[in-house]
Amino acid sequence: MTKVTAQLSVSVDGFYAGPRFDGEGDGDWMESTEAAGFFRVTRWVSNAMAWRERQGFAGGDQDANSEVVAESFSAAGAYVMGRRMFDGGELPWGEVPPFRAPVFVVTHRPRQPLLRGGGTSFTYVTDGVASAVEQARAVAGGKNVAVAGGGSLVRQVIKAGLLDELELHIVPVVLGTGLRLFDADLDLGDKEAIELNPTCVIHDPEVTHIRYAVRGRAPLLLDDRGSGGGPTKTIN
Amino acid sequence: MTKVTAQLSVSVDGFYAGPRFDGEGDGDWMESTEAAGFFRVTRWVSNAMAWRERQGFAGGDQDANSEVVAESFSAAGAYVMGRRMFDGGELPWGEVPPFRAPVFVVTHRPRQPLLRGGGTSFTYVTDGVASAVEQARAVAGGKNVAVAGGGSLVRQVIKAGLLDELELHIVPVVLGTGLRLFDADLDLGDKEAIELNPTCVIHDPEVTHIRYAVRGRAPLLLDDRGSGGGPTKTIN
Repeated sequence: MTKVTAQLSVSVDGFYAGPRFDGEGDGDWMESTEAAGFFRVTRWVSNAMAWRERQGFAGGDQDANSEVVAESFSAAGAYVMGRRMFDGGELPWGEVPPFRAPVFVVTHRPRQPLLRGGGTSFTYVTDGVASAVEQARAVAGGKNVAVAGGGSLVRQVIKAGLLDELELHIVPVVLGTGLRLFDADLDLGDKEAIELNPTCVIHDPEVTHIRYAVRGRAPLLLDDRGSGGGPTKTIN
Repeated sequence: MTKVTAQLSVSVDGFYAGPRFDGEGDGDWMESTEAAGFFRVTRWVSNAMAWRERQGFAGGDQDANSEVVAESFSAAGAYVMGRRMFDGGELPWGEVPPFRAPVFVVTHRPRQPLLRGGGTSFTYVTDGVASAVEQARAVAGGKNVAVAGGGSLVRQVIKAGLLDELELHIVPVVLGTGLRLFDADLDLGDKEAIELNPTCVIHDPEVTHIRYAVRGRAPLLLDDRGSGGGPTKTIN
């Protein structure tokens, strides 16, 4: 059955990149502080053989991290992507992008679909994230719809209640500032939270992978802590 | 050898409590949104037998989480604590607080030391966090100096380069808003980060415990990602 999944490499303090590069001033994105943070938290990916193969690069490590990457690629039947991520990737991904599956780009700017080699296509969706997820689901062939990023798109999918599974790759570094996966735009109510269930943990010195099933919104009820009574569940 | 350690229960989005309770308006802290978040991320502690024993409560689970709590208590020879945490705990901790060791409270308000039962004392330190850590180290008897919290004190200790070990108890919930352990006051330079080494991971469905050794500040150097070359280390 198709699940809607997302995965993101984040620092211990929750950033998936450095502070947003505004495109102004000197230098390009590759030299920016945003990129420096992004490359630090994704360094484990760039070393993984399964990722390097998809990029057409030699070498890399055939280890647990590479298996995590390989599993993500093989589980995805279609992708949903934010416009900013697409803009940044369109040129570097080249004629044979690493997705090898249909990609639906959430954007305000209509554009004709783009067919690339290796099975990747880009379709531009202008009527919102739910529509993009539905279109991806329709062509995923029973495999997963992977929300490729960036962080704000992942938040939109969570906020809309559409995400089934979130995998965080927690990298042992504190960036201090940057782009956060979780920011204050989830529209949770007072004393309301989103409950998750961890379903898989894989640890490597370079990165700790935790996969969560998203259970959904639930009230934060006060437990009996301090009363001396037995433990109770705050979520029914 | 004495290490300076800190541990904190945090949500997947990095909050150790809900939004700060301002003490104004209706209700008390226990009924606040700050408390609701705090109790959610510390629920695993309140269920742990080792914690309940220290509080004089019966019951609880004798499981891996309880062992994590027991190890923390037994490793600590002295504590450093923020003033706000002390203010909140002074009454509920009662005559026999759970620390059973000297506690140094970082505050601007001088006060005579307070002796409690079971080996706990509170000493008020008005000349800063580094002094509090030194005073705690002097009486820790070779055991660890544990930074008990709250989050802003932990950040001060990290910022001062005094923290050797950070243990995060990552609870599978998204709070969306609240008090963050990591906020923008670490004074990191541009393209500078704090590198950590994970040394221990213990997973339970209620909480994932990751212990990090703090390596210190390091520049974020661009690696050779995308060049097709072999993996390189960006930190020397």
